[in-house]
Amino acid sequence: MAAAPVWSVDPRTGKQREQVAVEATAQEVDAAVRAAHEARGALADRAVRAAFLRTAAQRLEDAKDTLIEVADAESALGPVRLTGELARTCFQLRAFAGIVDEGAFLDVVINHPDDTTVPPTPDLRRYKVPLGVVAVYSASNFPFAFSVAGGDTASALAAGCPVVVKSHPDHPALSELVAKVLRRAAAEHGVPEGVLGLVHGFEAGVELVKHPLVAAAGFTGSVRGGRALFDAAAARPVPIPFHGELGSLNPVVVTEAAAEERAEAIGTGLAGSMTMGVGQFCTKPGFVLAPAGEAGDRLLKSLVDGVSDTDAGVLLDHRMRDHFLAGIEERTRLADVESPVTPGAGGEHTVSAGFLTVPASRLTAEGAYDVLIEECFGPVTVVARYESPEEVTAVLSRLPGNLTATLHLSEAEGAGEGRGAELLAELTPLAGRVLVNGWPTGVAVAPSQHHGGPYPATTSTSTSVGGTAIERWLRPVAYQGVPEALLPVELRDANEAGVPRRFDGRLER
Amino acid sequence: MAAAPVWSVDPRTGKQREQVAVEATAQEVDAAVRAAHEARGALADRAVRAAFLRTAAQRLEDAKDTLIEVADAESALGPVRLTGELARTCFQLRAFAGIVDEGAFLDVVINHPDDTTVPPTPDLRRYKVPLGVVAVYSASNFPFAFSVAGGDTASALAAGCPVVVKSHPDHPALSELVAKVLRRAAAEHGVPEGVLGLVHGFEAGVELVKHPLVAAAGFTGSVRGGRALFDAAAARPVPIPFHGELGSLNPVVVTEAAAEERAEAIGTGLAGSMTMGVGQFCTKPGFVLAPAGEAGDRLLKSLVDGVSDTDAGVLLDHRMRDHFLAGIEERTRLADVESPVTPGAGGEHTVSAGFLTVPASRLTAEGAYDVLIEECFGPVTVVARYESPEEVTAVLSRLPGNLTATLHLSEAEGAGEGRGAELLAELTPLAGRVLVNGWPTGVAVAPSQHHGGPYPATTSTSTSVGGTAIERWLRPVAYQGVPEALLPVELRDANEAGVPRRFDGRLER
Repeated sequence: MAAAPVWSVDPRTGKQREQVAVEATAQEVDAAVRAAHEARGALADRAVRAAFLRTAAQRLEDAKDTLIEVADAESALGPVRLTGELARTCFQLRAFAGIVDEGAFLDVVINHPDDTTVPPTPDLRRYKVPLGVVAVYSASNFPFAFSVAGGDTASALAAGCPVVVKSHPDHPALSELVAKVLRRAAAEHGVPEGVLGLVHGFEAGVELVKHPLVAAAGFTGSVRGGRALFDAAAARPVPIPFHGELGSLNPVVVTEAAAEERAEAIGTGLAGSMTMGVGQFCTKPGFVLAPAGEAGDRLLKSLVDGVSDTDAGVLLDHRMRDHFLAGIEERTRLADVESPVTPGAGGEHTVSAGFLTVPASRLTAEGAYDVLIEECFGPVTVVARYESPEEVTAVLSRLPGNLTATLHLSEAEGAGEGRGAELLAELTPLAGRVLVNGWPTGVAVAPSQHHGGPYPATTSTSTSVGGTAIERWLRPVAYQGVPEALLPVELRDANEAGVPRRFDGRLER
Repeated sequence: MAAAPVWSVDPRTGKQREQVAVEATAQEVDAAVRAAHEARGALADRAVRAAFLRTAAQRLEDAKDTLIEVADAESALGPVRLTGELARTCFQLRAFAGIVDEGAFLDVVINHPDDTTVPPTPDLRRYKVPLGVVAVYSASNFPFAFSVAGGDTASALAAGCPVVVKSHPDHPALSELVAKVLRRAAAEHGVPEGVLGLVHGFEAGVELVKHPLVAAAGFTGSVRGGRALFDAAAARPVPIPFHGELGSLNPVVVTEAAAEERAEAIGTGLAGSMTMGVGQFCTKPGFVLAPAGEAGDRLLKSLVDGVSDTDAGVLLDHRMRDHFLAGIEERTRLADVESPVTPGAGGEHTVSAGFLTVPASRLTAEGAYDVLIEECFGPVTVVARYESPEEVTAVLSRLPGNLTATLHLSEAEGAGEGRGAELLAELTPLAGRVLVNGWPTGVAVAPSQHHGGPYPATTSTSTSVGGTAIERWLRPVAYQGVPEALLPVELRDANEAGVPRRFDGRLER
C-alpha cells in the first residue's frame, strides 16, 4: 500500500498547494522516538539548553519572511496576526532560556541530617529531572505559538526533554519548515537533530502516544481528539502524563450595575474579543450572562453594531467551516433562541460572525439547551439574559470547566460593594484564569500565567502557557546520603550553580 | 439483602475480634462525599486548617494507649513499632500545619502590567486553590501513617480539601477510632465533622472514585488494586488525578569494591532492612545485584546469618501470607534459583524470612525469570550475582519503576573514583529516591523527601511523603485585572499574609 500523501491546503480556496510529506508509518514513528531518546544526553547541560533555545528564536526570526508567507498560505490568518504570533513564539523560547538559566524550576530542597524530626532525617537532597521524550500534538489555530516551536516544545526542551511533534494537518508545510529551523539550531550547539522529531498523520499520532519511550504528552485541540489520546495514554501498560488543552466556553458574567454603567463599552469589547481571529481562539468568550432589561438591551445593541461591522473571514479549514455552520443550525433551531445577527456562511470559503440570545431560565436545568453551554469553534457567542442573581448562580453551577471566566463589574462593585466578591468566588471553581473587566482573548507569556482549567479545559492541573509550563515535563528525585563528589552540582552545599533553593527549611534566592 | 458486615480480625490467630461496621452502600458513599463537599468552606481559612491539624495530632496522642492496643490487635505490628508510627503520624500532621502557616505551597506569582513582553502582560496574579473532596485509599502496612490520619489525609486537609477515606479491611476498628478523633478535632475548630468521611467495603471504594464530587484520589496498595482504581479515575466523564503508590522492587547494587571493603556490614544491613516489619515495607530492598566471587560470597554469608537470626513473624492478614508462600513457591521452582535460607511458613499464622539467589545472566533477557524482578510482599529478597559491570547495566535496564534504588560503593568510589557516578546515573531513571551506602526502609518526613517513582511505583510524578505531598491537591488559578479589594489577601501587593512569592520576577521570602 502506498504511503498516504500529506497535502498543504489553502483554506481561502480549498485547493491543494503542494504535497509536503507522507504520513509516518509505525516504523517511522518508532525511528523518530528512538532518535529523540538518543538525543536526551545532549540536553543534560542546562547551558546548552538555554543557548539552543535562544538560537532557535534567532533562527526563526532570520527565516521570518518565508515562515509568515507559508503560514498565511496555509492558515489564512493574515500576515499581521502571524507576525505577532511569531514574535510571541520567539519571546517564549527566550523566556524559557531565562528560566533554564535561573534554575528555580529544579525545585531544589536540601536537608542535612536532623535528629529532632520523627523519624530522624538523613542527608536528603531533592531536585527535578526530565521525564524523557515528550510527544507534542500541535494546534491548528496557532501555527507558531502552539505548534512545532510553540509552548509545549519550548517548555519540554527547557526541561531537558527531547520532543517528537505530531504536526497539525492544517499547516504541514510550515511545520516542516519550522522543524528544520529548530534542528539546525540544535546542531549549532552540538545537539543531535533527532532532538526534534516531526511526524504527520492521524495514525502516527496514535502510535506516538503509545510508544514505550514516550514519557509524557502535550496536546492542544478538540475534546474528541484530546480525550481519545488521553484515554490511550492512560491505558498504556505504563501510563504517562497527558497534558491536554481540549475545549472551553469561557463564560462572561456582566452584572446589572456594570451594564448600567457601561453597556456600550462592554458590548463593543465583547464583539472584538469573540470575533478576533475569526473566533478561533481557545479563549473566545463563548457564553455571556447579561441582564434582561434596558441596560442589557443597550449592551446587545452595541454587540449588534460591533459584530455587524466585522468582515466575513476564512476559517482554518473547510471541516471547521462545516462544523461551525452545523453548530449554528443546531442552536438556532431551539425555541426562544434568537439571533440578532445570524452567524453563517459568508461566501464559498468564508463565514460571517454573529451571536445568539436565550433566556437564562432555559439553562438552569439539564436538557436540549445544554448545547448552548458547549463550545462552538468560530465567530459566535451565546448571550443568556438573566432576570435575577439567583439565575446567574443557577446557570454558573451547570457550566463545565473552562480556561477562563470573566466578570464585568461596576466601579462600586470593583471597590468591594455588592456581589463582586461573591461572584468572583463563584467563578473561581470554573476556570484557571479569572478576569475582571477585561477580555480573555490574548494570553500573556508570564510567570504568573495559568492557561489551563478544570476538565474539559485541560486534562491535568497544569498550564501550557507561562513559566510554570515547564513543570509538566519533570519529576522529582531525592538523593539520600550521596557523597558530595557524586552529587549533581545543583545539590551541593556550596551552590556553585547559584540556583534558588530551600536549604534546611530556609528559602534562598 | 442485608448489609455486609465489616469484621476486625486478629492476624495472630485469624479469628474475628468484633464486627466494626457494615460496608457502605452507594447511597452512604454519596452522603459521605456530599457531607465532605459541604465542609469545604470551613477549611478556606488557613489559620483554621493549621489549628485543626495541630489539634488532631494532640488528640491522637491523648488517645495513644487505646489506639496502640487496637492497632496491635488488628495488625500484629507490635507496640514498639506502632508507637513510633503514631509519633511519626502526629509529627506529620504538625509539619503540614507549619506548611499551611508558611504559605509557600500557594506558589504565589505576581506580575504587574509590563509592555516590554510579547504580548504585553496585564496585571496577573496566580496562586493555588484546593481541588475539592479527596478520596484516600489507606494502606494495610501503616495503620497510622498511611491510613485515616496519614500523609494523604494530612496533606489534603492542609491543602484545604475535605477527605473521604476508604478504610483498609485489615484495621477497620482502628480506622473508626482514628476517624472519630479527627472529627472531634475538627469540631473543636468549628469545622463540620463531615470534613473527614470514612467508608468500608470494596464496592464503596469503587463508588468513591467515580463520584462526581470527588476531585482527586490518593492510594497506597497493590499494583492490581491501584491500577483498577486508576483506570476508573481516568475513565470518568471528568477524569481526576489519581496519585497511587502501587509497588516497588527497590533494587540495590553492590559494587565489587564495596563488597571487598565491607561485605559483612552490607550483608548484615541488608538482612535488617529486608526483614524489618516482617518485610512489609513498600521500600523493602527486594532485589540485590551483588558480585559473584569471594567478596560476594562473604556478603551472602552475613546475610544468611542475619536472616537466620530473625524470628518468624505474623503478616498483616492471612491472604498476604498465602500470596507470600505462593510467591516463594513460584520463584524457587526456577532452575538455578537457590535459597540459602528458604523463606516459608513459620507456623500456622507466621512466616519465616529468607532469600533467593540467581545468576544475573538469567535476567538479562525477557523470560520466566522476570518473576524475580517483581515485588514479593514479605520477608524475602532476591540476590542476583553478576560477573561484570556490563551484566549490571543489562539487568538494570530491564527493571520496572521503583520508589527507591540503592547503591553500595567503596570509599574510593564514593570519592569519585571508578564507576560511582556512572552507576548513580544508571539508577536515577529507575527511582524517585536514590541512596548511597544506606538502606531504603525508613522514609523521613522532610521537605526534601520524595516518596514516589516511575510506574508502577507511583501513577503520577508526585510524592506521598514530605512537604511537597500537598501539591497533589491543588490547582493554580490566575487572576487578571482583579481590583485590590476583591483579591485574596495572599495576592495583594502589600503581602499582609507574609507568604513567599515571586513578585515581578524576584523571589521574595
